[in-house]
Amino acid sequence: MNNKVYIFDTTLRDGEQVPGCQLATEEKITIARELEALGVDVIEAGFPISSPGDFLSVIGISRAVKEPVVCGLTRAKQEDIDVAAEALRYAKRGRIHTGIGSSDVHIKHKFKSNREQVLEQGVWAVKYAKSKGYEVEFYAEDAGRADLAFLAQMIEATIAAGADVVNIPDTTGYCLPHLYGKRIQYLFDHVSNIDKAIVSVHCHNDLGMATANTISGLIHGARQAEVTINGIGERAGNTSLEEVAMTLKTHQDLGLTTNIKSEKIYDLSKLVSKMMRMPVQPNKAIVGANAFSHSSGIHQDGFLKHAENYEIINPADVGVSSSSIVLTARSGRAALKHRLEVLGHKIEGAELDLVYENFLIVADEKKHVGDEDLEILATNILVLSR
Amino acid sequence: MNNKVYIFDTTLRDGEQVPGCQLATEEKITIARELEALGVDVIEAGFPISSPGDFLSVIGISRAVKEPVVCGLTRAKQEDIDVAAEALRYAKRGRIHTGIGSSDVHIKHKFKSNREQVLEQGVWAVKYAKSKGYEVEFYAEDAGRADLAFLAQMIEATIAAGADVVNIPDTTGYCLPHLYGKRIQYLFDHVSNIDKAIVSVHCHNDLGMATANTISGLIHGARQAEVTINGIGERAGNTSLEEVAMTLKTHQDLGLTTNIKSEKIYDLSKLVSKMMRMPVQPNKAIVGANAFSHSSGIHQDGFLKHAENYEIINPADVGVSSSSIVLTARSGRAALKHRLEVLGHKIEGAELDLVYENFLIVADEKKHVGDEDLEILATNILVLSR
Repeated sequence: MNNKVYIFDTTLRDGEQVPGCQLATEEKITIARELEALGVDVIEAGFPISSPGDFLSVIGISRAVKEPVVCGLTRAKQEDIDVAAEALRYAKRGRIHTGIGSSDVHIKHKFKSNREQVLEQGVWAVKYAKSKGYEVEFYAEDAGRADLAFLAQMIEATIAAGADVVNIPDTTGYCLPHLYGKRIQYLFDHVSNIDKAIVSVHCHNDLGMATANTISGLIHGARQAEVTINGIGERAGNTSLEEVAMTLKTHQDLGLTTNIKSEKIYDLSKLVSKMMRMPVQPNKAIVGANAFSHSSGIHQDGFLKHAENYEIINPADVGVSSSSIVLTARSGRAALKHRLEVLGHKIEGAELDLVYENFLIVADEKKHVGDEDLEILATNILVLSR
Repeated sequence: MNNKVYIFDTTLRDGEQVPGCQLATEEKITIARELEALGVDVIEAGFPISSPGDFLSVIGISRAVKEPVVCGLTRAKQEDIDVAAEALRYAKRGRIHTGIGSSDVHIKHKFKSNREQVLEQGVWAVKYAKSKGYEVEFYAEDAGRADLAFLAQMIEATIAAGADVVNIPDTTGYCLPHLYGKRIQYLFDHVSNIDKAIVSVHCHNDLGMATANTISGLIHGARQAEVTINGIGERAGNTSLEEVAMTLKTHQDLGLTTNIKSEKIYDLSKLVSKMMRMPVQPNKAIVGANAFSHSSGIHQDGFLKHAENYEIINPADVGVSSSSIVLTARSGRAALKHRLEVLGHKIEGAELDLVYENFLIVADEKKHVGDEDLEILATNILVLSR
């Protein structure tokens, strides 16, 4: 089996579908270009029928990027597929992502339908999308809670109808890793034409399991992972691109590779956080402000003696330089105090006031005040207050 | 096998060991009382020899709580154990948590020692701690990367020496769930006296796997989980208490229970975030501002039709009220300030001006500004002002 894992980024579709995160088309194009530079294989650029903005963004991104496949989401409806096909017309390689519910709860309560009808509609949608001349990916919504035998039947039928990729989403973030992996394994064991398509995993983080479920799916044969930068997305979000990429890089024993240029991760994380107004907590894996701040804890209590004993990822591998945080003249006293603490200097009260005054003088002279300047300022105070 | 999982909270030890998070003793006592109300079984209250503050906090917490075991961390050294025993003297039930490195990388590069010597020192430490009359928990540091046969030998010897609990930490956050589970399984298969102690799992989130690893350990026989509120802790943090508690509650098929009163989770999450100045990102599982905000995405693009199809946890189960108060572009500064206060954010002066400006931008884009949007706006300010 091929060991290449395709990275399908949905920051601009499932990620953007969050209150307060909406972007203008130009902003989406900026992020799409950075995703291309990062090395993602597929960019899900929007849900074209949902709004004129999404429609225009899919067109804009299709024109802007060369390497990645550009994908548009649809329901299993003719008008959705028609509009997506239109939006993708400038894509070098376009993909229509269509699908329908597969769990009984979705079939009954969302689609007011039955298994036979949704299966038929899914097969029809794949054939119709295929007739537009694009790659077709089929999603079996809420597959994490679907009856396994029915799910296998649906996947077999949609692959037979022409699906190039079949997506097995854990839509509600319900699954545990060993059970999600078993679902993927079941499909490989029971779907006769499974080798004709790429199996994709799309997980949500409601129980904190998205990355683990994704890796479990890949171990059991899936070869596409659907992810977002910083794990943004509805509710508790989607699987984090950076966690999947770095897990595969760290665990080379799994024998799985991606095209991700990991050293570009950190800058893109910050760009997405800023543009989409979604803060990243300091203790976020890989991209949080503290993710590589071993040393402070070490210095603080003398408990940990050798940082390298605690490091499984080299910060430079994800583009974090050891002095990447810079302060400017607009930085506040709290930011200064925090950064000094990170550097091992606990300075408060009148001494902090004095350091801050000196800091402002330096900051006025220099655009950026780096750690080395702060060390000098802190040492000066130490000397003065002796 | 017993189906009760003991929750060992280390928010005040491993969580507090982070730059900028340090608390005063009174603040630690406040959080400890809330942890008792939440129903945790063990509170790790500090590392007594590390500082006078930690020493006094362990004393203060020992006096303040009645139900939970109070635990103090030590290295495998006489002075550490002496000081911890002293700090725990007022505890109704005290526990000394001692240990030493178990992986070759730690043994060689941190302890400059060899397997025989660290094993001997670990056994000695357990016996010495036991002689103080407390419960004793032994940690095999960096067990996630340790040679399995040696780890089993160390665990067998420390249980024979009297350890009541044996902690198998994935100190660097390196393990994958199925492999961490196999480590725990190996110990049950190869340690002859394993039934004489409780096996504890202590995971870190460097690859985003902490919760999944913890659950995998519990599935394979561990019965204590070491966690922190909001998953705070060094680097990418520790396992999140709320994710473990709600995974066990959601997956009753696992047959594992805790004493956690889950409806108290949300308020304690906010208290810890505020006191320790560690913002929680909106897409954090269980306690993030967006964790239960299905409806916004739904209304926005008409894609999702029935929120209940997407909900695996009832927000009320973790203490999130479904409060539907929304602000609009016509809401004034006072209404905004009031609502932010209701949500636990006291924001005034220039910061309020800034939040209000951002609020108006969001309100122009959206008809209604809900609590989840306000949380994001407030969190952004918290992050910016760090």
